[in-house]
Amino acid sequence: MLNNISIKIYRDILHENNSIARENKSLLKNKMIKMFNLIGSPGAGKTSLLEGLNKHLLNKKIRFAVLEGDVETTRDSERLDKLGIKVSQLLTGGSCHLEASLIHQALNDLDLSAIKLIFVENVGNMVCPAEFDLGEDAKIAVLSVTEGEDKPIKYPLLFHEAKAVIITKTDLLPHLKYDLDSTIGFIHEINSKIKIFQVSALMDRGILDFCEWIINY
Amino acid sequence: MLNNISIKIYRDILHENNSIARENKSLLKNKMIKMFNLIGSPGAGKTSLLEGLNKHLLNKKIRFAVLEGDVETTRDSERLDKLGIKVSQLLTGGSCHLEASLIHQALNDLDLSAIKLIFVENVGNMVCPAEFDLGEDAKIAVLSVTEGEDKPIKYPLLFHEAKAVIITKTDLLPHLKYDLDSTIGFIHEINSKIKIFQVSALMDRGILDFCEWIINY
Repeated sequence: MLNNISIKIYRDILHENNSIARENKSLLKNKMIKMFNLIGSPGAGKTSLLEGLNKHLLNKKIRFAVLEGDVETTRDSERLDKLGIKVSQLLTGGSCHLEASLIHQALNDLDLSAIKLIFVENVGNMVCPAEFDLGEDAKIAVLSVTEGEDKPIKYPLLFHEAKAVIITKTDLLPHLKYDLDSTIGFIHEINSKIKIFQVSALMDRGILDFCEWIINY
Repeated sequence: MLNNISIKIYRDILHENNSIARENKSLLKNKMIKMFNLIGSPGAGKTSLLEGLNKHLLNKKIRFAVLEGDVETTRDSERLDKLGIKVSQLLTGGSCHLEASLIHQALNDLDLSAIKLIFVENVGNMVCPAEFDLGEDAKIAVLSVTEGEDKPIKYPLLFHEAKAVIITKTDLLPHLKYDLDSTIGFIHEINSKIKIFQVSALMDRGILDFCEWIINY
């Protein structure tokens, strides 16, 4: 009984979320802003990726903002703020994913005339954030080489939904037993059309390619 | 409105879960079996830790079983089965955590007279699994050094609930910018009584200490 009710409520939550996500999408389209939703495990390298992108976007004079999702703490926001990045902190208060309503509030507080791109850094979690559209142009999966090869088939929804996968921390490859071709095979098993970037934020490797893909998306 | 209903339903789900968890606990106590719930991000090294423990538990002639939680695939079960470990696969079908009812079914299917220990490998996720008691004797947080230092304060509930933290992949320390003391400081900020083990499953380092802690728990 409880299960039937909770499935219904969950559907209602997703339904309401999707309706607000459509509003977000329409608002951003009117303002000619593209929004990307970065999803990956805790410590996959989402914040480092944004730190790495900052330099290239500055070089190209493209102004952007970050909506920083966390269960607790403002640590990632502080890291980005130190680099002069415009960042809004979204605290979920225990919840394991961002929902469209929180993004909606944040968009209302931003000066949307001053930016061309928005990056959402979702809560560190490979499962739940993939279920919630935020009104983004694309979800981007962030997967570090230290997580092992098989995560795309173990957590397939994210890789099914995402338009690109960023394989991070490739500078560590010489020190790992890790088969990159196997990872890429697993990703393509779930989604044959997805774009794959191999990056090292530490070495500034592959970030420019990803940056150009974002700009031309 | 929706939020009030969904909070109520969520409380009911937790309430029902905790009631089944108490049944599990009572069943295990009667059979003199200890159960440990391993929780950590995808790729934190939970399965490798179990592979590493197997050798030491075999040496000590302690029979155990693994309840292997996954969203999809039987890959981790197959890894453990290859080593002759008794393993039951629990597929959540999309859900981001294990609940006590699934553990209850699995316990009914096991020959409980033949084992002394059960390890639950939860779904790879640092957030949601920490909210659901399964009837375990202790939750164990699994955190790899490649995830960065600050995860304990960013995802505090797990570290608050856990009785031990296993810091994994310490063989990679020479190749990382990583401050282990800082991680330990963050863990103690959340939970000053927690036991911390530094391990490398690859090098069989620290696993025996953890094994003995488990046996004497």
